[in-house]
Amino acid sequence: MNDFYAILDTMQKQSVVFFTPGPAQLYPTVKKHIQTALETNICSISHRSKQFEEIFSSTIANIKKLFNIPKNYHVFFLSSGTEAMALTILNCVDTESFHFVNGSFSKRFFKIAEALRKEPKKIEVDFGKGFDFTNLNIPQSTEVICFTHNETSTGVFTLLKEVYPLRKQYPDALFALDIVSSAPYADVDFSKFDCVFFSVQKGFGLPAGLGVIALSPRTMQKAIDLYEKGGNIGSYHNFPILLHYAQKNQTHETPPVLEIYLLGKVLEDMLDTGIKTIREETDAKAKLLYDFFENHPRWSVFVKEKKLRSPTVITINTGSETAKIKLYLAEKGYIVGGGYGEHKETQIRIANFPTHTMEQMKELLKAFENF
Amino acid sequence: MNDFYAILDTMQKQSVVFFTPGPAQLYPTVKKHIQTALETNICSISHRSKQFEEIFSSTIANIKKLFNIPKNYHVFFLSSGTEAMALTILNCVDTESFHFVNGSFSKRFFKIAEALRKEPKKIEVDFGKGFDFTNLNIPQSTEVICFTHNETSTGVFTLLKEVYPLRKQYPDALFALDIVSSAPYADVDFSKFDCVFFSVQKGFGLPAGLGVIALSPRTMQKAIDLYEKGGNIGSYHNFPILLHYAQKNQTHETPPVLEIYLLGKVLEDMLDTGIKTIREETDAKAKLLYDFFENHPRWSVFVKEKKLRSPTVITINTGSETAKIKLYLAEKGYIVGGGYGEHKETQIRIANFPTHTMEQMKELLKAFENF
Repeated sequence: MNDFYAILDTMQKQSVVFFTPGPAQLYPTVKKHIQTALETNICSISHRSKQFEEIFSSTIANIKKLFNIPKNYHVFFLSSGTEAMALTILNCVDTESFHFVNGSFSKRFFKIAEALRKEPKKIEVDFGKGFDFTNLNIPQSTEVICFTHNETSTGVFTLLKEVYPLRKQYPDALFALDIVSSAPYADVDFSKFDCVFFSVQKGFGLPAGLGVIALSPRTMQKAIDLYEKGGNIGSYHNFPILLHYAQKNQTHETPPVLEIYLLGKVLEDMLDTGIKTIREETDAKAKLLYDFFENHPRWSVFVKEKKLRSPTVITINTGSETAKIKLYLAEKGYIVGGGYGEHKETQIRIANFPTHTMEQMKELLKAFENF
Repeated sequence: MNDFYAILDTMQKQSVVFFTPGPAQLYPTVKKHIQTALETNICSISHRSKQFEEIFSSTIANIKKLFNIPKNYHVFFLSSGTEAMALTILNCVDTESFHFVNGSFSKRFFKIAEALRKEPKKIEVDFGKGFDFTNLNIPQSTEVICFTHNETSTGVFTLLKEVYPLRKQYPDALFALDIVSSAPYADVDFSKFDCVFFSVQKGFGLPAGLGVIALSPRTMQKAIDLYEKGGNIGSYHNFPILLHYAQKNQTHETPPVLEIYLLGKVLEDMLDTGIKTIREETDAKAKLLYDFFENHPRWSVFVKEKKLRSPTVITINTGSETAKIKLYLAEKGYIVGGGYGEHKETQIRIANFPTHTMEQMKELLKAFENF
């Protein structure tokens, strides 16, 4: 892979489009917002100032608006999606969590619960596969059921309408949902979930370093109960401490102020475009990509079952040609992701995020065609 | 205080110098480095790529070089100084920590240990005071002794040469040191400490969102022992996991890549200037400030004992004039910090970081004089 990075190095100053599934291409307005932030000293303001409190509250308000999050849910800033997984386990689980594992990130969620000395259970299927949600046997003692909306490692998408009915079957469990690589496309009915999280370096096209988590009142109560029972729910970012500071539009630590500002600005831009438009455009670009690879003579779509195909991370079997294709595309100015884990050398993953235009997708496919 | 923020708002586009003790004035080269980062797509590169690994390893190497950290110490990236406190407690303490409390941040360290269900002990003195390190009675069962090099809330500095002899008195305890607001000025003999941490938004003049921690081999062993005994040492950022990924020049989560890149670049700039020069300049600017306020007819230096006066955070008793002084200075383009906690309305804190030039300090004092 050294050739690949050599090319990347020489290309750094040229016009490049990153189709990698995170960190990804910056959203088109990000550079402008960074300039404004620098001109207005956003990086130097105090995180205990009224200015910061306004940035905090308006960014939270924009998140709630874009995702249509119920008014009584709490929204907090974290450092990453991985941290969100750890906090979900610490704050929602005394003993038992349950995980649907079909790729590296749902497995990470499970492994974090193990590392935290819980007793996680799981259903595990092969990479590229989904789950039969109509035929489950989850212990009723389960405290949180963890779903991954979009497996970034494989491009398998979970249809939320298949998950919603489980709510009645497992009324005592909290429902957690990882939308790290499906947000903001993810159209989640938050009344069906208690704990939903994402990070900003994928679909929002922002520099990495910020996670966001939305919590139902039930989740907050569970964290408080665990703490009062004497449990260790984490310290500087446990849910009650996050709430304590959020009520003042502040954070415990000095937070990544620039990141929070930039997220607020990109959310404004996305609200201007309209989430409906963003979702429709994502679907249209995804259709273009899947149609192309579905009909390709040598390459194929990894996820066989159509309803499981992710609109935001398209995974293609490109076999022994993978390294050569990536090199060829890089020379043309298109950076695509490799496969994940054991599929590293035989698959290509293409991100289809709001930053990517239909025009760019067509040009990318032209380059694939000319390979 | 609304007037103050109103002025801040109208001044945002003007030339302003922040003398606030963090987040602070950006280091002079930061804007240029951000431009370069944007031009070279640093925000879009994969955190599993060779490019990132190079940024990671060169930044760590620069940290070790600037602080003269022993080769066998581990250096990791975190999200904040507050997170560093929590991780220190989780990874170094089964039951007992000991804290020197003389301000809000040393108290935070203590409170985090309490929240994590440990049994922390402390010596507590009034704000503005230091400790008599020659006359201590710390239990020999203490697992970690926590020192705050520079109390950001009060401007009290701890003379490390008074701490070093304790190493022989308490050979079994780990020694932790918070250098959040003294770095990079802090001239630490790392062989006398096991766990030293800072964040980047103060003395390094970088956007907030990154912490750094340096650990002795003993500390790493303690964390491993605690984990193997069945302890909860945290999950996504526990010391063994940080080590696991750092050995590959990577991180568990998607880290703040831009922040790490910027820290590496500012460290290069500081190494070019020379740490000796930075320390000498800091001392010279501190002397100027203390001499001025020491001789002022109405205002006075908060920390009475000269040897305890922080070179990096200068705290002045400005009494009932405080709000008016801050307003006047803001109109002139100088933003200073208020007092901390109960001293909010009666003190001013002035940061003296590497970003601040002697010229700027003289102009600031001229403004104080003309008030």
